Amino acid sequence: MRMYDVIEKKKLGQELTTEEIYEVIEGYTHGEIPDYQISALLMAIYFKGMNVRERLDLTMAMSYSGDILDLSSIDGVKIDKHSTGGVGDKVTLVLGPIVASIGVPVAKMSGRGLGHTGGTIDKLEAFPGFNVSLSEEEFTRQVNDIKIAVTGQSKNLAPADKKLYALRDVTATVDEISLITSSIMSKKLAAGTDAIVLDVTVGDGAFMKNKENALELAKSMVDIGKRAKKKIAAILTNMDEPLGYAVGNDLEVIEAINALKGNGPEDLMEVVYELGSQMIVFSEIETDKAKARKLMEDAVSSGRAFNKFIEFIEAQGGNSNYAKDLSNFKPASIIVPVEAKEDGYVHALKAESFGLASMSLGGGRETFDDVIDMAVGIVLNKKVGDTVKKGEPICYIHANDKNKIENAKELIEKATVISPDKCDHMKLIIDIVE
Amino acid sequence: MRMYDVIEKKKLGQELTTEEIYEVIEGYTHGEIPDYQISALLMAIYFKGMNVRERLDLTMAMSYSGDILDLSSIDGVKIDKHSTGGVGDKVTLVLGPIVASIGVPVAKMSGRGLGHTGGTIDKLEAFPGFNVSLSEEEFTRQVNDIKIAVTGQSKNLAPADKKLYALRDVTATVDEISLITSSIMSKKLAAGTDAIVLDVTVGDGAFMKNKENALELAKSMVDIGKRAKKKIAAILTNMDEPLGYAVGNDLEVIEAINALKGNGPEDLMEVVYELGSQMIVFSEIETDKAKARKLMEDAVSSGRAFNKFIEFIEAQGGNSNYAKDLSNFKPASIIVPVEAKEDGYVHALKAESFGLASMSLGGGRETFDDVIDMAVGIVLNKKVGDTVKKGEPICYIHANDKNKIENAKELIEKATVISPDKCDHMKLIIDIVE
Repeated sequence: MRMYDVIEKKKLGQELTTEEIYEVIEGYTHGEIPDYQISALLMAIYFKGMNVRERLDLTMAMSYSGDILDLSSIDGVKIDKHSTGGVGDKVTLVLGPIVASIGVPVAKMSGRGLGHTGGTIDKLEAFPGFNVSLSEEEFTRQVNDIKIAVTGQSKNLAPADKKLYALRDVTATVDEISLITSSIMSKKLAAGTDAIVLDVTVGDGAFMKNKENALELAKSMVDIGKRAKKKIAAILTNMDEPLGYAVGNDLEVIEAINALKGNGPEDLMEVVYELGSQMIVFSEIETDKAKARKLMEDAVSSGRAFNKFIEFIEAQGGNSNYAKDLSNFKPASIIVPVEAKEDGYVHALKAESFGLASMSLGGGRETFDDVIDMAVGIVLNKKVGDTVKKGEPICYIHANDKNKIENAKELIEKATVISPDKCDHMKLIIDIVE
Repeated sequence: MRMYDVIEKKKLGQELTTEEIYEVIEGYTHGEIPDYQISALLMAIYFKGMNVRERLDLTMAMSYSGDILDLSSIDGVKIDKHSTGGVGDKVTLVLGPIVASIGVPVAKMSGRGLGHTGGTIDKLEAFPGFNVSLSEEEFTRQVNDIKIAVTGQSKNLAPADKKLYALRDVTATVDEISLITSSIMSKKLAAGTDAIVLDVTVGDGAFMKNKENALELAKSMVDIGKRAKKKIAAILTNMDEPLGYAVGNDLEVIEAINALKGNGPEDLMEVVYELGSQMIVFSEIETDKAKARKLMEDAVSSGRAFNKFIEFIEAQGGNSNYAKDLSNFKPASIIVPVEAKEDGYVHALKAESFGLASMSLGGGRETFDDVIDMAVGIVLNKKVGDTVKKGEPICYIHANDKNKIENAKELIEKATVISPDKCDHMKLIIDIVE
């Protein structure tokens, strides 16, 4: 194989062979093919795409570029859940304990993220003492014992994706469906679970801004997952406004705990129940989705879901008093409202701007060297579809630096649309691909 | 400017600003922008192209990336001639002395080439002692004294093009019209002449395989040249079969000398006269192209053109006895015919294969480290349109290594088409863009 010929082929819109795709990924992972040839190929793929066969080959080649986790010593059907990302997304913190309390083994490997807030691992560190570096043996044993464990990524999973993503990120080749599909799915396949439930977010605060593109991505990922012999489904969820009311690390953890106690925001719970019932069906604990949802509702109302959360935090050495008594969380030093400028209905709370506002307050990382301020963020007082009076708070900014408030406020005000016309609450579940 | 944004803009088919184009070229030339971002941009340009304004900016930015020659101390209108390359192309060797003998100042900077045969500089080294490294002063003085000098490229001309071309060559981004235009024209503009005559070859042995693409390139280059305030014209010439009869270094030099003595092949002379008459008109020695052509014919028939060639070779220290007595050239050790396999008319002598055959005999360079065998090559006995009898030689292979003959013969046989249907000789001048 000459790399030149591969670029030329794709440039002309031709199909790459399985062998060519594997050689490209292996050669690049091992530093034998230079960045400049790969970036030319990526741009050619941007314009000419890849068919399903090529996508599967690319996904598998990337997945095999590093370790493939062996979860066979964990009992039951192992299920992974993945979200394409959003603002105020605390779904995993709520969903994990609920389904674990029903008996679904949740063996989750999570990363620290760049973005509006920290990742799941960052949020779990809100509980002092929480150990995010379990050994393989500890991890397996804990899942078998209490059905849930979450650990930081220790293994070398899909290094080809890491390298490719870094290159795509600086060459404007992130937004292409086959490349997105293979990037996400290669890591999911390397994570070694039997089933995968995907939360594909759609809207202002999501990577996919419109339903058409999100649906295409969902179908592409589900297709690849099935061809790789996994149980898989994708739920398209609305991300035009933040999910729930809280954006920010501790603020989201507190909202998640309230949700586990039965006081979750409607939109958050809708997403949690939809994803969770799919997971329960995949786990073969229940075959009917409506009944699976009932199991989840019972787990919450009975307190079993919250108790599972406490058990989980304690199993990994975290101080569960923070969950039992939310006043242990140290609030931000400044809490100021952003007020409505007119009467009417809330038509938009553009999610991306709320995310950026949280980040500008210190709630997220721009680079991996940044330290997250756990206390800062935003708590909504209104959601899209609510009525509002002039002067009433739309939301509250939680800040630790008064110099950062003005910018956050400006972002939020620009992102808020109020109009006298009536407006419905947002529909959370947009579509299901299975 | 962020390089990422420039790639994204072009990817979306938007127009790059003058400032962006200059910053990209300067940044790349100085090593501040990495190859992998440039190759992504090049591939985006391949798919989205550049409009005339962008092309001009790219050409100028590349031209200004190094030295711009100052030819002001040379008298008269300085004219450069450039060919997009072909097989058996010895035009410069014939054209230069003819127009110089008429008074057109020929100040030519030439390179050593990669390809089927050496470049003009390589061929001039056929004359022992010929100095290809003139100082700027020697160069200028010689052009003023005898109207013709040819030297190797000593100045740092358009280094951005050198770097970009090397990258395009390994990323399958050579064949895009704005990139080809700016690559050629940036060097022509840096060479500092007042006028440019372009020989745009079309056909099997040319970079441009069909008239449509060649015409587009010719128009693009002429357009850019005019916007850069140069006198410029492009002649589209046929390169389906080799030009003239000889392919190979010494073989082409011998054919060129014969042409200067009045015994040039019809097709070669047609190209020489067309390009030359355009040069003479640009030089303002004659305003009418037909009259200019007459001047050239007279220069050849009177012996003035050949005498100018001798004067030129001697001025640069070369042994002109080689030109005066062609038996001084040491022929290849093996000369074997390739015979026609049937009676009929010659319909095709596909030029590229003849070039590759010459190269495989040792007549060209694949890398700059290769040493050229000056004696080897091919001499045609037939041209397209000629009648031929079975067993009659189509051409003669001149080789110094008998192991290389079979492969060359095979290439030539595959490239030769004979059919009983009548067939015309090729029309050399396909179009003129001015």
